[in-house]
Amino acid sequence: MASMAALLVKSPGPNLQFLQPRSSNLAASGDVRLRRRPAGGARVRCGLIDPDGGKLVQLVCPAGPEREARLREAAPAYGLPRIKLSRIDLEWVHVLSEGWASPLRGFMREVEFLQTLHFNCLRMPDGSFVNMSVPIVLAIDDGQKRAIEGRGRVVLVDANDKPVAILKDIEIYKHNKEERIARTWGTTAPGLPYVDDAISEAGNWLIGGDLLVIEPIKYNDGLDKYRLSPADLREEFTRRNADAVFAFQLRNPVHNGHALLMNDTRKHLLEVGYKNPILLLHPLGGYTKADDVPLVWRMKQHEKVLEEGVLDPETTVVAIFPSPMHYAGPTEVQWHAKSRINAGANFYIVGRDPAGMSHPIEKRDLYDAEHGKKVLSMAPGLEKLNILPFKVAAYDKTQGKMAFFNPLRSEDFIFISGTKMRSLAKNRENPPEGFMCPGGWKVLVEYYDSVASQEDAKLQEPVPA
Amino acid sequence: MASMAALLVKSPGPNLQFLQPRSSNLAASGDVRLRRRPAGGARVRCGLIDPDGGKLVQLVCPAGPEREARLREAAPAYGLPRIKLSRIDLEWVHVLSEGWASPLRGFMREVEFLQTLHFNCLRMPDGSFVNMSVPIVLAIDDGQKRAIEGRGRVVLVDANDKPVAILKDIEIYKHNKEERIARTWGTTAPGLPYVDDAISEAGNWLIGGDLLVIEPIKYNDGLDKYRLSPADLREEFTRRNADAVFAFQLRNPVHNGHALLMNDTRKHLLEVGYKNPILLLHPLGGYTKADDVPLVWRMKQHEKVLEEGVLDPETTVVAIFPSPMHYAGPTEVQWHAKSRINAGANFYIVGRDPAGMSHPIEKRDLYDAEHGKKVLSMAPGLEKLNILPFKVAAYDKTQGKMAFFNPLRSEDFIFISGTKMRSLAKNRENPPEGFMCPGGWKVLVEYYDSVASQEDAKLQEPVPA
Repeated sequence: MASMAALLVKSPGPNLQFLQPRSSNLAASGDVRLRRRPAGGARVRCGLIDPDGGKLVQLVCPAGPEREARLREAAPAYGLPRIKLSRIDLEWVHVLSEGWASPLRGFMREVEFLQTLHFNCLRMPDGSFVNMSVPIVLAIDDGQKRAIEGRGRVVLVDANDKPVAILKDIEIYKHNKEERIARTWGTTAPGLPYVDDAISEAGNWLIGGDLLVIEPIKYNDGLDKYRLSPADLREEFTRRNADAVFAFQLRNPVHNGHALLMNDTRKHLLEVGYKNPILLLHPLGGYTKADDVPLVWRMKQHEKVLEEGVLDPETTVVAIFPSPMHYAGPTEVQWHAKSRINAGANFYIVGRDPAGMSHPIEKRDLYDAEHGKKVLSMAPGLEKLNILPFKVAAYDKTQGKMAFFNPLRSEDFIFISGTKMRSLAKNRENPPEGFMCPGGWKVLVEYYDSVASQEDAKLQEPVPA
Repeated sequence: MASMAALLVKSPGPNLQFLQPRSSNLAASGDVRLRRRPAGGARVRCGLIDPDGGKLVQLVCPAGPEREARLREAAPAYGLPRIKLSRIDLEWVHVLSEGWASPLRGFMREVEFLQTLHFNCLRMPDGSFVNMSVPIVLAIDDGQKRAIEGRGRVVLVDANDKPVAILKDIEIYKHNKEERIARTWGTTAPGLPYVDDAISEAGNWLIGGDLLVIEPIKYNDGLDKYRLSPADLREEFTRRNADAVFAFQLRNPVHNGHALLMNDTRKHLLEVGYKNPILLLHPLGGYTKADDVPLVWRMKQHEKVLEEGVLDPETTVVAIFPSPMHYAGPTEVQWHAKSRINAGANFYIVGRDPAGMSHPIEKRDLYDAEHGKKVLSMAPGLEKLNILPFKVAAYDKTQGKMAFFNPLRSEDFIFISGTKMRSLAKNRENPPEGFMCPGGWKVLVEYYDSVASQEDAKLQEPVPA
């Protein structure tokens, strides 16, 4: 099996010294003064990478007088203008409130928006860069702009008009959708899911400012227990005495090929001298496109994977990453990696075509499948993160299990695509034994059964006259 | 009149100390080790900023045995594959050969192309960044790729099959035109001039590598004397004992509003303590769109501006910048600034909507007119350059001359647009006295006369049967 060293994507700078536990979060430049680990940090925390900007941003008002004051300010009687948040807007407030986007303290003002679009990074007051590749912005329309102009603060409310946050020191600037889309996705073709669902119909202005979030964002969908904030995760990693944290971002069911990779990564981290590498299995929990498996089913599937011992619960933390999904390939994978730094991860596993999808109108992948990991390895502000490229796993007929693909005996392997997996589960067929743990597969079959029932029910609905 | 300090676009980092002559090329971070000026440099050179990468790249083989060897290698008998360069390709070879794009040593390989598209900058081996915002790439088609694959070098030839350069250590990678266009221009709308003329019909592959340029690129159009390389310019600035160099990029005739701004800049640089600020009046000389005034006429016009004393020849260097024009607004203005660092400029004047144009299919400017200077002031790798935003000049009826626009008495000013100027010149009418020096205006009238004659001649051509 290839050594871990062979997996490292080389950055154009000097080699990352990522295999040395004691220097794993050095900046790529080798400049001692760029080391992020505080010299005098508590011993138990010394394995955790510093958040971007040096301090984790947390924007939720503590319960008590401060929260009470915000609630009074947010009440209709106080007279502040109000903006109703869409579900995706609310997910971004959630993301911002817990510091996944540290050092951002609210929706982007123009200076941050422009840096994100043009440079995928933000310059800090000390001249260093933090990565920031997707715009985190709030759109308003002409009428809202007129109602807000001249005011310093607005109240953000949820679908039920309940105040969620106050946005202060606001700045309103133009929302050039075409330019935002072109620079974020590298295409303006119609049919990009996030564009269709969050941008096309949005207003022509963006409003930036600092957020004061009234209380922790909850969805009451039975999954809030999995929604650990970066601070929660850092506490958990510290409690477990992690000296390395490797993050695995996903929005699909976990099969045994994924598990092989994660277990193999841990093994190699142990081999090179880490004492207790912890896996952050981190499904994306915000907006996804219609044909992705919904979060609730994915979480059931992930639970089975741990219950059945495919991944070791002792060394695995399963939590939900609250971000919406852009499907913006090499641009978005940087966000997926950067946000995990803020949660304490210093190793990031990157696969083939991360955050990619089919081109919406041409018969090809939207992004070059290799660009994601290349861009990630070169991205400004991610130098301190160790990038672990995904090795390709496939079903090895000779072993009857998922194994790393060996091109020297390619005839022994079967690639089971997402489409194939969906088609098997829909038809209640079983995949080859060893492809996925039985409990996990059963969840998928149930999910597709439920979809079929819903479709049947729809078909049987009387057509309105 | 506003002080110079008021002109400075603030970067998100600490203030540039640009008003202090002795610290004018410090990096924005204030990090002493990032200072680019060599501690032991010759005294006479201490006013010139270091080129990107620390050393000016120069790729033209010296005359003598080395050039002879390259010529033998480039001969058909030697059997290397050949690529015929378009006019725009040749202009890029010119740009690369003289180090305008330092530290690039040839057409971009994929690692540079991706960094340019995603980050507008390249990470250097020491972890620092240099700016690089437009892709400098060479496209080949499927047939050329097949002919080249497996070879390490190719010969680049001009329209007459004369060898221009050898490209070595080549790498061939995919040319995703849609993504390149979207990320460079922020739109994929049809009708972008550079896209139509240099990308749409180009091949689906890019070939990168290091250039060995056989001899200096010449155009034999009577203007080669103005085509000073960065090394030539540095020598000239040194000869003049410049302690500051301020660059003015343009692709239009110079009117007295421009001249006012340039003279005013010099005055302020003297006031803050520079002894001999030199203006680099630097018209773009490569590809431009069809309705721009051609280079040869612009150079005649610029000559008159100096002859008639509107600009002082003692403190002005007029030279041609050999780059093609992208019309890519905030992305391209970074290239315009970065390349001038390589020529020794440490001050860069930026106007409203730099490198902008009308949206090709919508009735609006393609870029927000303020984005260019904002992006420029935040761009990674340009921290050492002092950005001077352009003050708006207009014709002041009360003074009978061009003056800085005063919004408190806006009724006294006339804005003479490019369209208005063209329409006056075409109709052989005179603009208000004081708008442009008479000799310069005469050149423009002659140019539009010549266009009209050509059009008449075309109309009189017999229609082929």
